[in-house]
Amino acid sequence: MDYKNASLSPKQRTEDLLKRMTAEEKIGQLVQPFGWKTYTKNEDNTIEVTDEFKAQIAQGGIGSLYGTLRADPWTEVTLENGLSPKEGAEAINTIQRYVLENSRLGIPILFGEECSHGHMAIGATVFPVPLTIGSTWNTELYREMCRAVAAETRSQGGAATYSPVLDVVRDPRWGRTEETFGEDPHLVAEFAVASIQGLQGERLDGEDSLLATLKHFVAYGASEGGRNGAPVHMGLRELHEVDLHPFKKAVEAGAMSVMPAYNEIDGVPCTNNKYLLHDVLREQWGFDGFIITDCGAINMLVSGHNTAATGEEAAAQALKAGIDMEMSGTMFRTYLLKALEAGLVTEEELDLAAGRVLEMKFRLGLFDRPYTDPERAEQIIGSQAHADLARQVAAEGVILLKNEGATLPLRADIGKIAVIGPNANTPYNQLGDYTSPQAPGQIVTVLEGIRSRFGDDADHRVLYAPGCRIKGDSREGFAYALECASQADVVVMAIGGSSARDFGEGTIDLRTGASVVTEHSWSDMECGEGIDRATLQLMGVQLELVQEIHKLGKPVVVVYINGRPITEPWIDEHAHAIVEAWYPGQEGGHAIADILFGDVNPSGRLTVSIPKEVGQLPVNYNAKRTRGKRYLETDLEPRYPFGYGLSYTRFEYSNLTVEPAVIPVDGETTVRIDVTNAGDREGAEVVQLYISDLAASVTRPEKALKGFRKIRLGAGETRTVSFTIGREQLELIGMDLKPVVEPGEFRIMVGPDSTRGETASLRVQE
Amino acid sequence: MDYKNASLSPKQRTEDLLKRMTAEEKIGQLVQPFGWKTYTKNEDNTIEVTDEFKAQIAQGGIGSLYGTLRADPWTEVTLENGLSPKEGAEAINTIQRYVLENSRLGIPILFGEECSHGHMAIGATVFPVPLTIGSTWNTELYREMCRAVAAETRSQGGAATYSPVLDVVRDPRWGRTEETFGEDPHLVAEFAVASIQGLQGERLDGEDSLLATLKHFVAYGASEGGRNGAPVHMGLRELHEVDLHPFKKAVEAGAMSVMPAYNEIDGVPCTNNKYLLHDVLREQWGFDGFIITDCGAINMLVSGHNTAATGEEAAAQALKAGIDMEMSGTMFRTYLLKALEAGLVTEEELDLAAGRVLEMKFRLGLFDRPYTDPERAEQIIGSQAHADLARQVAAEGVILLKNEGATLPLRADIGKIAVIGPNANTPYNQLGDYTSPQAPGQIVTVLEGIRSRFGDDADHRVLYAPGCRIKGDSREGFAYALECASQADVVVMAIGGSSARDFGEGTIDLRTGASVVTEHSWSDMECGEGIDRATLQLMGVQLELVQEIHKLGKPVVVVYINGRPITEPWIDEHAHAIVEAWYPGQEGGHAIADILFGDVNPSGRLTVSIPKEVGQLPVNYNAKRTRGKRYLETDLEPRYPFGYGLSYTRFEYSNLTVEPAVIPVDGETTVRIDVTNAGDREGAEVVQLYISDLAASVTRPEKALKGFRKIRLGAGETRTVSFTIGREQLELIGMDLKPVVEPGEFRIMVGPDSTRGETASLRVQE
Repeated sequence: MDYKNASLSPKQRTEDLLKRMTAEEKIGQLVQPFGWKTYTKNEDNTIEVTDEFKAQIAQGGIGSLYGTLRADPWTEVTLENGLSPKEGAEAINTIQRYVLENSRLGIPILFGEECSHGHMAIGATVFPVPLTIGSTWNTELYREMCRAVAAETRSQGGAATYSPVLDVVRDPRWGRTEETFGEDPHLVAEFAVASIQGLQGERLDGEDSLLATLKHFVAYGASEGGRNGAPVHMGLRELHEVDLHPFKKAVEAGAMSVMPAYNEIDGVPCTNNKYLLHDVLREQWGFDGFIITDCGAINMLVSGHNTAATGEEAAAQALKAGIDMEMSGTMFRTYLLKALEAGLVTEEELDLAAGRVLEMKFRLGLFDRPYTDPERAEQIIGSQAHADLARQVAAEGVILLKNEGATLPLRADIGKIAVIGPNANTPYNQLGDYTSPQAPGQIVTVLEGIRSRFGDDADHRVLYAPGCRIKGDSREGFAYALECASQADVVVMAIGGSSARDFGEGTIDLRTGASVVTEHSWSDMECGEGIDRATLQLMGVQLELVQEIHKLGKPVVVVYINGRPITEPWIDEHAHAIVEAWYPGQEGGHAIADILFGDVNPSGRLTVSIPKEVGQLPVNYNAKRTRGKRYLETDLEPRYPFGYGLSYTRFEYSNLTVEPAVIPVDGETTVRIDVTNAGDREGAEVVQLYISDLAASVTRPEKALKGFRKIRLGAGETRTVSFTIGREQLELIGMDLKPVVEPGEFRIMVGPDSTRGETASLRVQE
Repeated sequence: MDYKNASLSPKQRTEDLLKRMTAEEKIGQLVQPFGWKTYTKNEDNTIEVTDEFKAQIAQGGIGSLYGTLRADPWTEVTLENGLSPKEGAEAINTIQRYVLENSRLGIPILFGEECSHGHMAIGATVFPVPLTIGSTWNTELYREMCRAVAAETRSQGGAATYSPVLDVVRDPRWGRTEETFGEDPHLVAEFAVASIQGLQGERLDGEDSLLATLKHFVAYGASEGGRNGAPVHMGLRELHEVDLHPFKKAVEAGAMSVMPAYNEIDGVPCTNNKYLLHDVLREQWGFDGFIITDCGAINMLVSGHNTAATGEEAAAQALKAGIDMEMSGTMFRTYLLKALEAGLVTEEELDLAAGRVLEMKFRLGLFDRPYTDPERAEQIIGSQAHADLARQVAAEGVILLKNEGATLPLRADIGKIAVIGPNANTPYNQLGDYTSPQAPGQIVTVLEGIRSRFGDDADHRVLYAPGCRIKGDSREGFAYALECASQADVVVMAIGGSSARDFGEGTIDLRTGASVVTEHSWSDMECGEGIDRATLQLMGVQLELVQEIHKLGKPVVVVYINGRPITEPWIDEHAHAIVEAWYPGQEGGHAIADILFGDVNPSGRLTVSIPKEVGQLPVNYNAKRTRGKRYLETDLEPRYPFGYGLSYTRFEYSNLTVEPAVIPVDGETTVRIDVTNAGDREGAEVVQLYISDLAASVTRPEKALKGFRKIRLGAGETRTVSFTIGREQLELIGMDLKPVVEPGEFRIMVGPDSTRGETASLRVQE
């Protein structure tokens, strides 16, 4: 049997295997049921596959399993009933073994896991969320992080993941803002490339490699009203220039799997959008991998988008548009055979999809190395090295927004410090959505991070009070919080939001796994998938708590831990220092303490514009020149602009040159600038390059980020940073929707954020 | 000279005339300077043309003049220095005579005037704004109103106008919301057709006919963030289905002039958008008129959109895209000849544009009847018949939003009534933007409308206090307002907003005539062109005033006079009755009094959804099914839905039938429903037909208005209302962007608003 011959190519082996398969078996390869439902854990911790699973294998098999190791309220997998790193690997081996030994052709299962910010399994390292990662502006660090995530996941047998999220966020009301790298397509594209390199490694069948899935294809971050999965109103030019761009770069970097978004664009759902899934992805970009739906997305064609009147039609539309695998798989399993029999799809179309899935399994080495080593999983997962990496990512991603009178860094010999607020010591509130429960002690809170610096002194030098919850109107905790604060020399207030999932009845959309807003939810969750907001202010009585504490007259350092921009002008005005951490992950407490006490000089920079109020939206920096002048009540400027972030030192920019200053349309030029650390301590700066196209055949953004470099400079040190500008940095999407570099004048700006910098001119001529 | 021969066709005469013209003269026909700058009024009230105007005529002439009769802060024409109806007609005759007698070819000038809601000239009738007009749901009444507006304008020599505004409003933050008919494309289209019939009359050269200009072509009501003229993010399918639809219907109805919008769509400005101006408008729709820019729009190609690096390029882009005339005309006048000489445009392109302008002048009869009769102008303009019509439009457009415990109508024998609020007696605040100053007494305020009902009793039965201003935080007036209210049996509070233009320095964009938000503006203006808002709440201390008055325990009737939806939940909850009048025009006070006292039974219905809060936007009723479930803080439902409005009587719907219930794709069916006035007084009801397409090849709105009928029923009367459903009601814009009727199931709903009604099924089959 050729398909078992490892010396043949994946393509040859796939062709051979396909010939041997029935239609039912081919359809089986296109489905991906929920993995956590395939096994039971016995009292002696051994694993058994369920009867339902056995029946599925007998009925034609399963191509893939989703989230076999996922633990969270949706899966109802908990610390108590879930699997340790070693047990997880054993479970996957058990399931795989059952399939290989009990199916006609012995086709291994592709295990797909969530890795939004770390392998979403018990014991795995919880890294900061993508919004914090984006704020590092350090793609190399993210690449390393992705290597670690891939190693942890693959060590347990997970071979595919549903990351990276490449959505360009346009509306912070959206609950998944935290899952994005930010609002700029170039920035997202740079992280996209790093993620592919990091997750997929040198080759897909490496023992630390993971098949990355680009999602959500496409424009999911630009939904109507910031509502999750809502329609996208967008023309093709913007789509290509903004939202498709990161996907294109990731495909160029070798990405092999793509997930269409739930949303429609201009009346066409992504799930059955042949233009996107075939014309753009495969024909224009040469994508050679496979396409997997989001969970329940084919159902939405019948119920929601209503482009199909029946399940058969929906399944057929998806397959014909280019879908190769259905996450959850209920529609393909139920209707695809009927659709085939009814002539709604052809055998060739089915072969194409099944062939793509199978070929990927060959490429991933699953046929030749189907099992994993549980001992190795135990060593790799949650290792100290990975925790250190998580701490570094967090420390580089935390953004200093305000620092009046050098309130920060705190002096080590400060007397007493009060750590106040609902996010000061609430582990899950700092982890973001798509997080599994973790054993006590794995997550370091702000309180613990600060306490750990004081050793034995912590008990009498660090005071703690939650003060209030994220939501709700109880002021019960105010008195004690004020008492703590009044004894302290400085108050650190950890407030913000939470994406910690609720366990209450009706709080999970059982179809998609997203959270659902309920009238009677008592959790603190106010962000995350399914939790969109109509305001951007702090919830509950948090602002009031800050105001009460502030009256004491002590220095107040606000630490925001949250998943989307907060608009609180009072805090912007009155807090002595403001730190934005987004969700900094399991080492967040250490990382924040590192920043507060100056062991780490802040180098995070905003990747989303923080608006002044919700009625100003959208506020992305890269808008068109005609976006308007102002509203009656407020101007159009954000409170804190894209690219912004303070340091404990001071950087100066000088000697900007663009040489040559005139280039042909296919030419290149070099931008150089001297960056000096003019302060008295080492620090890292994010040098940002923006380009403005002064006139073009179509309208252009006022400015657009086209390069960035994070550099570390000692006190007094100067370094020359250079950027190459060529086709990629200058091109636009023309009237014919094709990229083109047009002759004309360009303004080059290099500086510390999107509003400031040295400028120079570049001329492109025929 | 053939072109002077009235027995030849406009086309023949145009061809002859074109041959005789120099390039300069042709370009002259494409420009439209500001008319108010062409004349001076002498101390003896005679009119003289200016030297500058004479020079322009000598240099090749002028095709058209803009706003010769317009009076407002921009033009700096006031009641003191402006022209009476008769003087205005004389002025236009004087200008016309100068041109005919002092130019080589004697080509008459086309005078274009603003008629957003009445001829924008001193003495002319000020009708309610389009948002109030839309709320009448009475297109026949609007057609009559347009006849009146055309008669007033043409009587003074104005032969073209820049109405109707056919923008489908999507975001009430937009200051021009008041200028639209509402959020539904079908509703706007119906008013569009009525406006063309009314303005253009039976033939364009009729003495009461006016060349209507459709604007703003297109999608101007869907701008980013509700900001005036900001980019539109929209795909072509939505563009055709929603925003282009009213324009298409108006072109089918014979519209002969179109104005492109300031905004870009997906990177292409409307001003140089060949796809829209040529492919869609002329080729797909067969439009045979001419295209005039918005004021300063070609400048924006160089400064704003930046699709042109030079003036020559901008002028050439506009001409080549299909622009025939430039409002203001500075770019065509300055650059078009140079562009011609440089080969950027051809002589043929110039001929095409000049020919279209000239042919329109022939069609309008300007060559054969260039002068107007000032005596007739004096009789027609501001006539009592027109005032009566304005009152009727206002009375039918006022919407009763709440009427707790039958607070309204007020009993005629009520004791004392307090009329309180900044909009109770402020004439210009009830007129909306695009309004000229009018002589004292022409405008009837709410106070005056109420007082007039009490005759000699008014002084002691009607108490009045402004209470506060629309903007600003002065509570100086509270005490007196409370004193008045405490003496009254009922309190009518006229509050809301204002689009009354400011006269202050820097408050007008001199290029476009739009208002500009300034930091130090003391006017009450918070709506109108250029005044976009970031919140939708009442400004200033108005809410507080209502709350203080409410504490007195008297019945409180809130009358909103304003230009966009207001979100004030406290008022929704606490006011005993709420009336929304938008800007009801010069007879607004009478109309509102008619409603308050029950002489008119309210029949206005909302044509925009009123949101609960700004963070909910967008809230239009005809969204897609996938628009989302809710926000954390609020659901997605509006406070008051599209189509909603109360009556003093009660209507019941029964016996809905759809016959036949199955039709072929090119078939028709009839929907019938019995509507009964089940109350005890006569009233008018707006019977609304909504269609839901249950499954289609592209996604469809959850429901869409496809018919409406305003009927008047006596107490106890029942009438059967019928609608025909065919191609037009069932079609969608398919994958290929062409309209098509697809087989499948449709749900038919007929009811009193967009949320309620009887339902039935319709099946369309191959």
